[in-house]
Amino acid sequence: MMMEQLGDKKWGFQRNQELEASSISVRGVLKQLMANRNEEDQRSTIPLGGADPSMYPSYRTTPFVADAVADAVRSFNFNSYASNVEHLSKDLPYQLSADDVYLTVGCTQAIEIVVSVLSRPGANILLPRPGYPQYASRVGCSSLEARHFDLMPENGWEVDLDSVEALADENTVAMVIINPSNPCGNVFIYQHLKKIAETARKLGIFVISDEVYGHLAFGSNPFVPMGMFGSIVPVLTLGSLSKRWIVPGWRLGWIVTSDLNGIFQESGFAESLRSHLEITADPPTFMQGALTQILEQTKEDFFSKILNIMREDADFLYERIKEIPCLTCPHKPEGSMVVMVKLNLSLLEGVTDDVDFCMKLAKEESVIVLPGIALGLKNWLRISFAVEHSLLDDALGRIKAFYNKHAKKEY
Amino acid sequence: MMMEQLGDKKWGFQRNQELEASSISVRGVLKQLMANRNEEDQRSTIPLGGADPSMYPSYRTTPFVADAVADAVRSFNFNSYASNVEHLSKDLPYQLSADDVYLTVGCTQAIEIVVSVLSRPGANILLPRPGYPQYASRVGCSSLEARHFDLMPENGWEVDLDSVEALADENTVAMVIINPSNPCGNVFIYQHLKKIAETARKLGIFVISDEVYGHLAFGSNPFVPMGMFGSIVPVLTLGSLSKRWIVPGWRLGWIVTSDLNGIFQESGFAESLRSHLEITADPPTFMQGALTQILEQTKEDFFSKILNIMREDADFLYERIKEIPCLTCPHKPEGSMVVMVKLNLSLLEGVTDDVDFCMKLAKEESVIVLPGIALGLKNWLRISFAVEHSLLDDALGRIKAFYNKHAKKEY
Ligand SMILES: Cc1ncc(COP(=O)(O)O)c(C=O)c1O
Ligand SMILES: Cc1ncc(COP(=O)(O)O)c(C=O)c1O
Repeated sequence: MMMEQLGDKKWGFQRNQELEASSISVRGVLKQLMANRNEEDQRSTIPLGGADPSMYPSYRTTPFVADAVADAVRSFNFNSYASNVEHLSKDLPYQLSADDVYLTVGCTQAIEIVVSVLSRPGANILLPRPGYPQYASRVGCSSLEARHFDLMPENGWEVDLDSVEALADENTVAMVIINPSNPCGNVFIYQHLKKIAETARKLGIFVISDEVYGHLAFGSNPFVPMGMFGSIVPVLTLGSLSKRWIVPGWRLGWIVTSDLNGIFQESGFAESLRSHLEITADPPTFMQGALTQILEQTKEDFFSKILNIMREDADFLYERIKEIPCLTCPHKPEGSMVVMVKLNLSLLEGVTDDVDFCMKLAKEESVIVLPGIALGLKNWLRISFAVEHSLLDDALGRIKAFYNKHAKKEY
Repeated sequence: MMMEQLGDKKWGFQRNQELEASSISVRGVLKQLMANRNEEDQRSTIPLGGADPSMYPSYRTTPFVADAVADAVRSFNFNSYASNVEHLSKDLPYQLSADDVYLTVGCTQAIEIVVSVLSRPGANILLPRPGYPQYASRVGCSSLEARHFDLMPENGWEVDLDSVEALADENTVAMVIINPSNPCGNVFIYQHLKKIAETARKLGIFVISDEVYGHLAFGSNPFVPMGMFGSIVPVLTLGSLSKRWIVPGWRLGWIVTSDLNGIFQESGFAESLRSHLEITADPPTFMQGALTQILEQTKEDFFSKILNIMREDADFLYERIKEIPCLTCPHKPEGSMVVMVKLNLSLLEGVTDDVDFCMKLAKEESVIVLPGIALGLKNWLRISFAVEHSLLDDALGRIKAFYNKHAKKEY
C-alpha cells in the first residue's frame, strides 16, 4: 500500500516542540473553550473572551472608513508593490514626537517584526505579567529570552519598577508595556509613564509601548502616548486600526519610533528594522493609501459615541461583578475593552482553577471568558465588556447563576 | 548635553549582523540601482529590474476584481478578526488535489511562514540557484541552513537532480522549486516535475512549489501544478493574486497542501503549521471574503489578453537580445515575467562584472536590470519583459547603445 510505504519512510521534517510549546494564543484558548460548550444549550453563546466587538450594531465602524478603503481599491492607484515600507512620517496627528512610521499587517505583525529585529542569542526582553500572550509566543520563536515583571493590581495595575530593575541585566534589550492595558483595563498616568521611561533609560533598554487600545480611555486618566517620553528613552509605539476604528479584520497597524536623541539610529536599530522590513510582507497598498484619510478625517462623534458605550458597559460590568461573591475586580476598568477579575476558589465547590472555571462556564452557561493563566496570572479571569449591552447583562446573570450553583455550601 | 549623555550610554540592543548579511532583497538591490541614476538624464527611467507591470495600461487588472474587494469592504461582513486561518478548502478551482488552503499576506508571507515552520537547529533546506532571494533571506532569519542546487541553462533551466541528491542528507527537510520560473522564465514539463517528486520522495523531503507565476505560461509548455504529484510526495504550493491578477500591492497569497498519503498530518507538520498560523498576522478578512469570487469569476479573456501581451513581449525581447553581442539568452522565455541573460564580459571594456554593468547601465542609460549575483548567478542579468511595449523597445535600444559604447575595440 502506497500509504503505508510512505508512512514508514523517514521524512526529514521533525517538529520543533519547544517552539510550539510557547505558542499560546488567545485565539487558540478561545477555540478550546468554544469546543467545550454544550450543544444542547438552546441559549446563544455569549463571547466575553475576545476583544472584537465589530459584529455588534452598537460597535459598528463608521461607513466613512469603508468608503475610504473601497475608493482606494477602485482608484487603480494602489495596485503596485509598495516602493517603500516607511510611510506617513510625522503624519499621524496624535503622535507628538514620531520620527518614523512603518506600516504593518495589524499590530500582530508589528509585534512579530519588533521581536525579530531585537532578537539575538543571549539577549532578553522584559514582558508584563499579566500580558498579551502574543509577545511571549513571538519571543518563543526568536532567540530572545522572555522575563516577566509584575503589574500590581493593588496599585491600579502599575508596573512594579523594582521587579523591572531586578530582572534587567546587560543583555536586556527592551521592556514592553501595554497602555491602555490588555488585560487589566487600566490607563497609565503621565507620571507613571515618565518613571517607566526613566527606569528604562537607567537600564539602557528600549521601551516598546503597545498602544493598540490607544485613545480608548473613558475613565478619569487621559490616554498619554509613550512617544511623549522619546526625549528620555527610545520608544517604539505599536498600534493599529483594529480597536479604535473597530475593524480588526482589516489588519492595518504600525510601528512608530520616537527617539529625540537618535539612539535608534546610532545603535543600528533603525537600519536593522529597515533591512528586516525589506524582506517582510507589507500591508495592502490600498490600505496604506486610505490610511491618511482615515486617521485625519474620521469624525470625532464616532469616537465619542464608542467611548460612551464602553464607559457605560465597563461601569455596568464593574457593578455587577460586585454581586458575584467569588469574583473581585481590584480596579474599575477605564480603558481598553477588557478587565481582570480575581477568582476566589475557596468560595466554590468542585472548581479547581481558572481553566476549570472557564471550561465549566462554557459548558454549563455558554459564556466564554478567558482564564488568567493564558495571560500569565493563574486564578484570574479576563472579561470583555465590549459586547452589546443586553448580552453583557445576560452573561453576568449567567455567571451569577453559575456561582450560585457551585457556591460552597455553608452549614 | 542630553544627546551626548545618551549616546555614550550603553544600550542593551546590539545588531545581529549575521542575520542582516543574508537579507538580500530584490527591492533593496533595485533601490541601489535607482539611486545610481544620472539625474541630468532627460529620458525617463525604464525599470526592467522588477516584476510588477501593474502601473502600465496594457497590464491593468480587470475592474471586476477591484469591485469584488470594494464590495467586500463595504459589506460590513468582514470587519471582525478571522475566526480561522484556514479557508477555501478544496475551493481553488485549479488545484487538483488540495488538502487545505491557508491564506497569507501575499506569497512573501507564505515563504516566511513555511520557512519558520520547517526551521529546526541542524536542519537544512535546498534552494534553486539561480533563485528568488527571499528564500535565502528568510532561511537566514531561521535556524535552517540553505544549500543550493543548480538549474541548468543548457537544459532549459531544469533542476540538476544529481546536485539535489548530492546535497541532501538526513537533516534535509524540503526543496524549493519556482515554476513558472523566476528568474529563468522557463516552465517545467510534466515529466520533469514528476522526476522532482520522485527524487524528493526518495530523499524523504517535502517539495515547496512556488507558483506565484502559476498559469503565466505562454510558450509551448503548459503550466502543470506541482500539486498533481501529491500522491508521490507531500507538496506545499505557494501562490498569490500578485502576478496573474497583476495586483501585487493587494497582498493576498496562500499556502496549499497536496499530500494524498497524509504525511503532513502524520509527521506533525500540519499541526505545526496550524499552531504557527495562530500567532501570525492574517491577510485582511475582506480580501479573504472577495477571494472566491476573484478566483472563480475573473473572465478568461482578461487572462488571455495578458498572456498574449506577454508572449509578444517575451518574443520581442528574445529577438532583440540576439542583436546585442555581449548578451546571450540560453532559453527563450515561456513563462513568468522575467528571463535570465548571460553577460559576456570579454566583449566589454571596463565593465568588471554584472553589478558594474547594471550600475553603469543605470547611470548612463537610465535602464534598470537586476544583476544575477542578487539571484545567486554572477555575471548574468535578469530582465523583465512585462512592461509597456514601447518602453521595452526603447530600453533594448539603450542597452544596445550601452554595448556599442563599451564594446572592446578590435583592431
Ligand atoms: C495588546 C494587544 N496588542 C496587539 C494586538 C493585536 O492587534 P491587531 O488586531 O492590530 O493585530 C491585540 C489584539 O487584541 C492586543 O490586545
Ligand atoms: C518567485 C516569487 N515568489 C514570491 C514572490 C512574492 O510574491 P507576493 O507578491 O505574492 O508576495 C515573488 C515576487 O516577485 C516571486 O517572484
